[in-house]
Amino acid sequence: MLQRIFNVRPMSLETIETPALLLDADKLDANCRRMRERLQAHGVVLRPHVKTAKSVEVTQRALDAPAGAITVSTVREAEYYFDHGFRDILYAVGLVSSKVPRLAELVKRGAHVRAIVDSVEAARELNVATAKAGVRIPALIEIDSDGHRAGVRPDAPDLLEVAEALGDSLHGVMTHAGDSYNCTTVDGIRDVAARERDAVVSSAGALRRAGHSCPVVSVGSTPTATFANNFSGVTEVRPGVYVFHDLVMAGLGVCRVEDIAISVLASVIGHQKEKHWVLVDAGWMALSRDRGTARQRVDQGYGLVCDAEGQPIEDLVVVDANQEHGIVARRGGGSIDLGRFAIGSLLRILPNHACATAAQHAEYHVLRDGQPVEVWERFGGW
Amino acid sequence: MLQRIFNVRPMSLETIETPALLLDADKLDANCRRMRERLQAHGVVLRPHVKTAKSVEVTQRALDAPAGAITVSTVREAEYYFDHGFRDILYAVGLVSSKVPRLAELVKRGAHVRAIVDSVEAARELNVATAKAGVRIPALIEIDSDGHRAGVRPDAPDLLEVAEALGDSLHGVMTHAGDSYNCTTVDGIRDVAARERDAVVSSAGALRRAGHSCPVVSVGSTPTATFANNFSGVTEVRPGVYVFHDLVMAGLGVCRVEDIAISVLASVIGHQKEKHWVLVDAGWMALSRDRGTARQRVDQGYGLVCDAEGQPIEDLVVVDANQEHGIVARRGGGSIDLGRFAIGSLLRILPNHACATAAQHAEYHVLRDGQPVEVWERFGGW
Repeated sequence: MLQRIFNVRPMSLETIETPALLLDADKLDANCRRMRERLQAHGVVLRPHVKTAKSVEVTQRALDAPAGAITVSTVREAEYYFDHGFRDILYAVGLVSSKVPRLAELVKRGAHVRAIVDSVEAARELNVATAKAGVRIPALIEIDSDGHRAGVRPDAPDLLEVAEALGDSLHGVMTHAGDSYNCTTVDGIRDVAARERDAVVSSAGALRRAGHSCPVVSVGSTPTATFANNFSGVTEVRPGVYVFHDLVMAGLGVCRVEDIAISVLASVIGHQKEKHWVLVDAGWMALSRDRGTARQRVDQGYGLVCDAEGQPIEDLVVVDANQEHGIVARRGGGSIDLGRFAIGSLLRILPNHACATAAQHAEYHVLRDGQPVEVWERFGGW
Repeated sequence: MLQRIFNVRPMSLETIETPALLLDADKLDANCRRMRERLQAHGVVLRPHVKTAKSVEVTQRALDAPAGAITVSTVREAEYYFDHGFRDILYAVGLVSSKVPRLAELVKRGAHVRAIVDSVEAARELNVATAKAGVRIPALIEIDSDGHRAGVRPDAPDLLEVAEALGDSLHGVMTHAGDSYNCTTVDGIRDVAARERDAVVSSAGALRRAGHSCPVVSVGSTPTATFANNFSGVTEVRPGVYVFHDLVMAGLGVCRVEDIAISVLASVIGHQKEKHWVLVDAGWMALSRDRGTARQRVDQGYGLVCDAEGQPIEDLVVVDANQEHGIVARRGGGSIDLGRFAIGSLLRILPNHACATAAQHAEYHVLRDGQPVEVWERFGGW
């Protein structure tokens, strides 16, 4: 019986205990190279968002260098990357005073930390808190280019008021085109990208006309970074998820399904024959609760199911997930040849949202030519 | 400016960096006591599911003892609790051969591990793998009481076939009434509880009539454990989430909102005045992507917002979440007095699903009488 199980498991993957996060380093390298070359051709700095991978090894491949400019969303990310040699760090979530002491410590140790603010109140508190901590943390003004989240509208009078409140701390403007995730066509993404660029370039122009220095003009989302035609006036771009890609990106047309570099390795643990269900040991704890494809044309459930080699199996998705159970079935129902899915056999599940799925794991099992070759740590927390 | 921030922060919580997971130990103790006393009165063993808390301190309070019978959903949970003195462990996810070696190691070190199986194939593989490992791991047959997930139907011929395949390893029957989460009334939960009991008690009867020993008859879900009227023939109950409770349980009528023992402490990081939004530093990374209340009568978004003392603020919920941003707004729209939500001020967010939200954190900040008194570790992984 064991013999049969081992026969359906490629010897290379069978030593990995399931569920586990796999990272295809060949796909990672290709994704990183594509974005790097694209932005180099446009003459803008790539400042990848490290919140997706939280892995120094991944970010080094993104930059093709031991260290470089990065974007972070937690103080922990800033500290971890600093400890691994990264000095140029944009903290891209509205900064509150309580987080200044830990960032100030990094500045004292040699980091170039930049913050973002989007109100007079936040700008004043940043200046007070950094003065108290005895450091300077220059700040970008966050611009709201699409009504998606935070930021000052580029045409609002607040823009100049925030700049005045920042004073010498003003370092530029930034935005994130979150709306690009809701597009249904590539032309739609290009339109969002144009609005994203226009919002920061026009804001930078308004600041400069008012006599402010505005060296940094920063945009960033994987969809807009992939399809934008015009980076004129932009100095840096901050995509994140492109290193791995995921089913949401594939649904948007930003990547192909075969570009997705991470997957969750799972074991078949049972069947419900009458229902044509295959039960696996990857539930929402391993996959995350993210259902980002639910509002796309093709709903991928909790993930698209592939064989152990990573080839998608026609229309097989994780239709439901409990904490440590995934229910695999045919999208929209239909029979499955359960003989292909013996108990103990391995499957891979492609994630809806790479950031969310990777966050459920403490390590990447790295594959080269489909074979596991090493393990890279990833970290969590704040 | 800093002075004002500190004024709106109770001195006791201000030292906790946000986002952070708070655990009100007074509420925890009350929740644990209520369930313990209820099951004691019914004369059944409480075997709490530790997947919710993944904390020895929490489970010791659930049992009111340094150790005792527990239910686990990962090998890591089994190992961790064993290392902290727990010996009586039910691994309540269909077991595959690849996980037997680590469990066998625990058995050799003195653990009483029980597994579950729901097919002839799995039963045979368990016997082969345990024999190979040189240990015995008795197994319960998983019964499908509600068509929710795994298990053998109590009236299916498979039941006796699985028992035959297990042979001497047969130790009893178990089920999980996952359908209790979909009820809309307490009477509905009582009906599910009756079906849950009937399924295992009738299965145990069928096994005994066929000459099998069936000492353990195990049920378990927090809703059914809370409302079942009849445990006759049942030997043990395996609720999990009751130690903390959450908004899904409150929506089911299983607890009151004020019984919910965990919350996420967050800082206000900004506003969108025109939209009546308050932005906080708790996104889905701190809250999880769980939207379990979306299909209940009251949709709580990504969580119900409370003031720093834990009092719910009328109809304020996290309406959307990005990785490290939460958007707080009035349920269904409406204006907010932003003067109450200065940048840097603290809020608490009650979770939809305690298991999912707690899983996003590595520690509990434990409160007594509302004051933080200690930190308890929690673990993750498999």
